[in-house]
Amino acid sequence: MGLLGLGLVLVAGCGLEPSGPEAPDAAQAGDALAGRADSLKNSSTSATLPSWNDGAAKEAIIAFVARVTDPASPDFVPEPERIATFDNDGCLWSEKPVYFQLLFAFDRVKALASEHPEWKDKQPFKGVLEGDFEAVAAAGQRALLELIMATHAGMTTTEFEEIVTNWLATARHAELDRPYTELVYQPMLEVLDYLRAHGFKTFITSGGGIEFMRPWVEEVYGIPPEQVIGSSIKVEFQERDGEPVLLRLPEIDFIDDKKGKPVGIHKFIGRRPIAAFGNSDGDFQMLQWVTAGQGLRLGVLIHHTDDQREWAYDRDSHVGRLNRGLNEASERGWIVVDMKNDWNTIYPARRQ
Amino acid sequence: MGLLGLGLVLVAGCGLEPSGPEAPDAAQAGDALAGRADSLKNSSTSATLPSWNDGAAKEAIIAFVARVTDPASPDFVPEPERIATFDNDGCLWSEKPVYFQLLFAFDRVKALASEHPEWKDKQPFKGVLEGDFEAVAAAGQRALLELIMATHAGMTTTEFEEIVTNWLATARHAELDRPYTELVYQPMLEVLDYLRAHGFKTFITSGGGIEFMRPWVEEVYGIPPEQVIGSSIKVEFQERDGEPVLLRLPEIDFIDDKKGKPVGIHKFIGRRPIAAFGNSDGDFQMLQWVTAGQGLRLGVLIHHTDDQREWAYDRDSHVGRLNRGLNEASERGWIVVDMKNDWNTIYPARRQ
Repeated sequence: MGLLGLGLVLVAGCGLEPSGPEAPDAAQAGDALAGRADSLKNSSTSATLPSWNDGAAKEAIIAFVARVTDPASPDFVPEPERIATFDNDGCLWSEKPVYFQLLFAFDRVKALASEHPEWKDKQPFKGVLEGDFEAVAAAGQRALLELIMATHAGMTTTEFEEIVTNWLATARHAELDRPYTELVYQPMLEVLDYLRAHGFKTFITSGGGIEFMRPWVEEVYGIPPEQVIGSSIKVEFQERDGEPVLLRLPEIDFIDDKKGKPVGIHKFIGRRPIAAFGNSDGDFQMLQWVTAGQGLRLGVLIHHTDDQREWAYDRDSHVGRLNRGLNEASERGWIVVDMKNDWNTIYPARRQ
Repeated sequence: MGLLGLGLVLVAGCGLEPSGPEAPDAAQAGDALAGRADSLKNSSTSATLPSWNDGAAKEAIIAFVARVTDPASPDFVPEPERIATFDNDGCLWSEKPVYFQLLFAFDRVKALASEHPEWKDKQPFKGVLEGDFEAVAAAGQRALLELIMATHAGMTTTEFEEIVTNWLATARHAELDRPYTELVYQPMLEVLDYLRAHGFKTFITSGGGIEFMRPWVEEVYGIPPEQVIGSSIKVEFQERDGEPVLLRLPEIDFIDDKKGKPVGIHKFIGRRPIAAFGNSDGDFQMLQWVTAGQGLRLGVLIHHTDDQREWAYDRDSHVGRLNRGLNEASERGWIVVDMKNDWNTIYPARRQ
């Protein structure tokens, strides 16, 4: 989803969702985490990707990696061309009840409210301050874009990085009572490690804001900032007291969603990845672009099927809607991961 | 320079330049090339950067690398943060008589002329076809932009890559009678290798077209496409007979020059480099941004002083103009490389 998508999502994203999941089994998650290091040393299927249950999805990922990394295979791919792209929201971390970046924006409205007395009487700010999310949703797309810009622009890039870092250090998911950076998928962390251990470069290709991700994805996913692609607002070079700064402007630069994802991949990477992981129809064109390339390709869709440990949603969800992808995955040869049955663990062990 | 800059450059770039350099000393270049592998094994100053003469510039580069890579040094920088950016035209390869991308555009006009009979009577195409570069220059900026778009847009990204690759495989620099990809600076190839051997990631940050560079810079510079930043036109995702393609549109997306360079660095890399190499005032803000960061930083300007082996130009040149940089380098602590005296070799040995 793009910054605009953040707003659209709101329309049904708050209040209409099914109730939250049960807290994940920390002991189980801890076992899986302990098994992670083993997966990189041991090439047997059971030790590889330990949070994945044996099954077609796990087998397909392992078989793909084996074939593209075996110099004797006709499907061998030289290391520099081993590029894999991952959506973020709903693919690497959770996205319910709404995209976490939107919850960040709401918290910023509250933090900045004292500097903006006019927000008390102006939607969608009023709704955010009063906890009236129906009013927020009813304010419409343009008003929501105004909210995003009011919370994401007007500061330097360095200042924004600090704001995001501070928020993530203290904010907690209301239902799961955990920091957002712990609501990442343990099985996907294992896939990231597994691919990198086999010479892949892993990139994020998210509809979310690029500068909202860069401050933390290196620590959490092992993905450096220069391998993050996302939606962005414009930035301008200025001098302040002789010091150069980059000022964030309230103007959209790029929306990295749907048809924008292959464009973003081309813009930032400049060659076609050989593997792509997504979870929604916002990832459809990315998977299409990646798997249409010559040679062996891997396209994977994470299907949210687990209403106990995470959330179950697909065709009718306003966050992470997955409809066309489900219809066409089979004919296109894309792997659909059934979270409930394919993953024995959802989140890593609790730290905080 | 940006795509528009390509046009501006033309005004005095053709016909008004001093005569070309003598052919480089191939034997000397061969010796230097043979010495390259040694430089990575041997840490003594004389074996490091063999095409660089001993002097302040070489010493400054080596001292910087020693300090940021020594874990015991207060200036130590962890490997993921060792990012170095390089301008391309005039910094990694030559840029006379005009940017090579403009010569590519002229050759494309000639190649496409039979499909465009109207060009015979329309400037600036007419001037290109008749070799009348004064008429081309006189046609003005808007006309030159039209020429760039006519030669760079309207095809898929895959098709454009093939066009660039084919051109570079056959085109030769008129005065030096060598392929353009051999007109790269041997001393800079050594700097790229030297930095990478010390844990740096090397990026190109050029005003030139990003898709004009990506097809060849991996082989020539060892820089993969995902580490190339440049000016770009817009691209659109489309389906053709069910196959996804990315179509190049005649519309500017980003100009990676002057104040655009820090913006491009931020957009693509997302963190501040610790070293930057440029050669013109188009690189001024990049060096400013990089060297204003906290900790030890390296800013380098290549000064074209060698009218025998390459070209000598600076303050009054319409290609690679270097004026403010020369004025302020000293007070800003930037290294100015004197090509004539600091480099014992300019180009690698001839292959073709």
